[in-house]
Amino acid sequence: MKAAIIGGGVIGGGWAARFALSGWEVALYDPDPEAARKVAAVMAGARASLPLLCDVALPAEGRVTLAASVAEAVRGADYIQESVSERLDLKHRVFAQIQSVAPDAPLGSSTSGFKPSDLQAGAINPGAIFVAHPFNPVYLLPLAEVVPSPANPPAFMARVQDILRDIGMHPLLVRKEIDAHIGDRLLEALWREALWLVKDGVATTAEIDDVIRMSFGLRWAQMGLFETYRIAGGEAGMKHFMEQFGPALAWPWTKLTDVPEFTEELVDLIASQSDAQSGARGIRELEGIRDGNLVAFLRALKDRDWGAGAVLNAHDARRGAAAAAAGAPPAAGPVVEAMTVLPSWIDHNGHMTEGRYLLAGSLVSDALLGRIGAGAAYVAGGRSYYTAETHIRHLGEAKAGDRLTGTARVLAHDDKRLHLWISVMREDQGTQERREIATIEQMLLHVDMAAGRACPAPADIQAGIAALAAPDAGAPWPDGAGRHVGQRKAAP
Amino acid sequence: MKAAIIGGGVIGGGWAARFALSGWEVALYDPDPEAARKVAAVMAGARASLPLLCDVALPAEGRVTLAASVAEAVRGADYIQESVSERLDLKHRVFAQIQSVAPDAPLGSSTSGFKPSDLQAGAINPGAIFVAHPFNPVYLLPLAEVVPSPANPPAFMARVQDILRDIGMHPLLVRKEIDAHIGDRLLEALWREALWLVKDGVATTAEIDDVIRMSFGLRWAQMGLFETYRIAGGEAGMKHFMEQFGPALAWPWTKLTDVPEFTEELVDLIASQSDAQSGARGIRELEGIRDGNLVAFLRALKDRDWGAGAVLNAHDARRGAAAAAAGAPPAAGPVVEAMTVLPSWIDHNGHMTEGRYLLAGSLVSDALLGRIGAGAAYVAGGRSYYTAETHIRHLGEAKAGDRLTGTARVLAHDDKRLHLWISVMREDQGTQERREIATIEQMLLHVDMAAGRACPAPADIQAGIAALAAPDAGAPWPDGAGRHVGQRKAAP
Repeated sequence: MKAAIIGGGVIGGGWAARFALSGWEVALYDPDPEAARKVAAVMAGARASLPLLCDVALPAEGRVTLAASVAEAVRGADYIQESVSERLDLKHRVFAQIQSVAPDAPLGSSTSGFKPSDLQAGAINPGAIFVAHPFNPVYLLPLAEVVPSPANPPAFMARVQDILRDIGMHPLLVRKEIDAHIGDRLLEALWREALWLVKDGVATTAEIDDVIRMSFGLRWAQMGLFETYRIAGGEAGMKHFMEQFGPALAWPWTKLTDVPEFTEELVDLIASQSDAQSGARGIRELEGIRDGNLVAFLRALKDRDWGAGAVLNAHDARRGAAAAAAGAPPAAGPVVEAMTVLPSWIDHNGHMTEGRYLLAGSLVSDALLGRIGAGAAYVAGGRSYYTAETHIRHLGEAKAGDRLTGTARVLAHDDKRLHLWISVMREDQGTQERREIATIEQMLLHVDMAAGRACPAPADIQAGIAALAAPDAGAPWPDGAGRHVGQRKAAP
Repeated sequence: MKAAIIGGGVIGGGWAARFALSGWEVALYDPDPEAARKVAAVMAGARASLPLLCDVALPAEGRVTLAASVAEAVRGADYIQESVSERLDLKHRVFAQIQSVAPDAPLGSSTSGFKPSDLQAGAINPGAIFVAHPFNPVYLLPLAEVVPSPANPPAFMARVQDILRDIGMHPLLVRKEIDAHIGDRLLEALWREALWLVKDGVATTAEIDDVIRMSFGLRWAQMGLFETYRIAGGEAGMKHFMEQFGPALAWPWTKLTDVPEFTEELVDLIASQSDAQSGARGIRELEGIRDGNLVAFLRALKDRDWGAGAVLNAHDARRGAAAAAAGAPPAAGPVVEAMTVLPSWIDHNGHMTEGRYLLAGSLVSDALLGRIGAGAAYVAGGRSYYTAETHIRHLGEAKAGDRLTGTARVLAHDDKRLHLWISVMREDQGTQERREIATIEQMLLHVDMAAGRACPAPADIQAGIAALAAPDAGAPWPDGAGRHVGQRKAAP
């Protein structure tokens, strides 16, 4: 599948990253001579964060090429996304160029403000043009507001939503086209009020940010506005809440009826407060912090299968099912598991904590169990391999972002016992050389979970183990296997 | 220390829970005959979530008593918080009752809208009355907007902020008193716009909630508004962003200039949409989900030492320092560490993941290292004990909320090596019987971190180890020590 991205700023670059990391070929056009550098920076941010949200294998990253013209970019594209500047005349010109080559391909616009019928005016094929409005960073935040006009056939819009789901987004079909759709209407209201608070000297930019992120920002990130207020209404329900708090709307609390004048003085005031608040960090550093925070939130929501986390889980499930249908996982060869050291794996000295060495080992043994048919589906049937004991040798360190590779070898096995040897290697970020940072020796027992005791594994699983063990049969055990804690190297 | 809470609804109950879980005695007054039941429900929610945010020992929970009158509640109180209904005449009457008994105690009001000078009008001691506006759930969200008037002495307000920090809050001193302070001004602006979107049929309550929590809600929960936009402005900075997006304010995007009329029809529309969105879950269930999400976010931010997480870390540090100054940790006797199994320690089967057994062991060995003078301060000096190898025996399971106790014994030691035996016991939630669920045998090496190699520990640390080892010297090693993986029990 090929996506064409027209406009390579922060938004266009984010779309390119999302498509490429979802396995699409991407052709991007932007006349800016700096486009290649800018897109590469966004791609680097996306590669460092988006894969941390996926619990199934990612497809191979699609190629991103810079096209020499709009026509070259859109030729043969299955999906086209426009992210040029917010000027209607410019967008109309770009649409004409696009549709003279690819009149029927879905053509989404990232516009913050324009209605789809504004965008469609005078187009070669109005029915292919719609709003697909994302939020920065596009590669992490799942929302895409999808706004059609009556000119867009419903079946066509259903296909658009499927495409956006394929790249992991939550396509929210907006019922009525209005200026600024839904999200920016809400953002604009709060932004305007915040400007008044700064202009009137009630609060600085840093204080306003603290108010938001220490209170309702945390509520909104997981439940939004109405569900939060429903809880505030308590057992009496939403109607009670509305009746209790509704009248406050008429109180003279806000300055919403005026728009603060955009004087140079106000711009300078806000810019200087923002410098004082955030100026010690560069934009790249702030972006890295933001992406790390977002990944941590989204992972937390994923663990809880809630909100944006439920979107990610559904995406994993679709991707996993597609891979299974394609007969994907390798049925032969050694068990190899790639991992990235997450920020949460790190102690205050910047090193991977000792508990995480065992976690890394678990990821490898889980992969091995999946290979022999003793994965999650098998466990759901009431039997499982439990770890009885583990011996870890800590041989080296790892830090956040390091790529680790774990390999597993079967040392010994019988009908109940599975004796594993796991080696965890760290890839040097510069030289790409691999160094062993831990060995993990484990004894697993096949158990009947309800009975709470060991029992023989079925024949097909034993056969899977035997197949994995065969290549190493008779080979000497690795150095360090069969040791007890404190055993000197010279000892037998 | 004693806190008096006047008004025991969701907000007053939340204040009571925060004070009690911070070790304060709490006297609460509310004439509602249901007050005891309501406060107990809030306390249960707080007990299930707030402790999960603390990484140092919590003080013993303070007693919460229901007082028979305002006078009884506030007598001898070090801090008083008013959370009665949002009516100025009622608040004035309550303040008069309070100050006729306790005129000088800090008296904070949870008011969403009134200015402190409104509240102080006609009071016995206006200088003791101020706004301390929290956000629901009060026991989890750290923000308290602290708004003084010119009548409040600055030194007095500094003491108020210290008290709020003592219960883990982020007291934000508001520079200018205005109706609705800062947070509710912002909330009100967005709420008003959301009502228009529902009324105009652009979106349902569920769609608006999804827009928020799939996009800017996640941004605001960690950076707020201005820092987010600073990043959007890119390398050109905040001034560039303002110049680019400022003019959009004048566009006819929003309906902010009108207030939607609060007809019965609008109330019914929103209540019925909210039922469709959230009605399948009761309020208690929604509260539990919300608190679980908030804990997960706050823990994520704590790991990253950012925003509200930095507030929690600072609170832990203060509390840890206070415990240390009070000569808290026992200087003798065996090393014992109490732990609670956190939700994040649990796999999809509801059991503690195997990696967390080692983490539990690390908490115990950290406690031992602290005892012998090789804790964080020692590590900062460039030397540390590193774990060289570990042998774990998994003997039982644990689930979320289980209380674990870890004990450590020194098996052997020399100038560089420290051979430890850690036993982790689970306390049965019913019978309170303890059962060993893991043993962890470790070899630690004393290292010079810069040189990256083992070196002898200084004499005082060796003496500390010897003192810990003395009671067990000559006793046989525990069953299971000195074993290698797969060794049969009968083997020597």
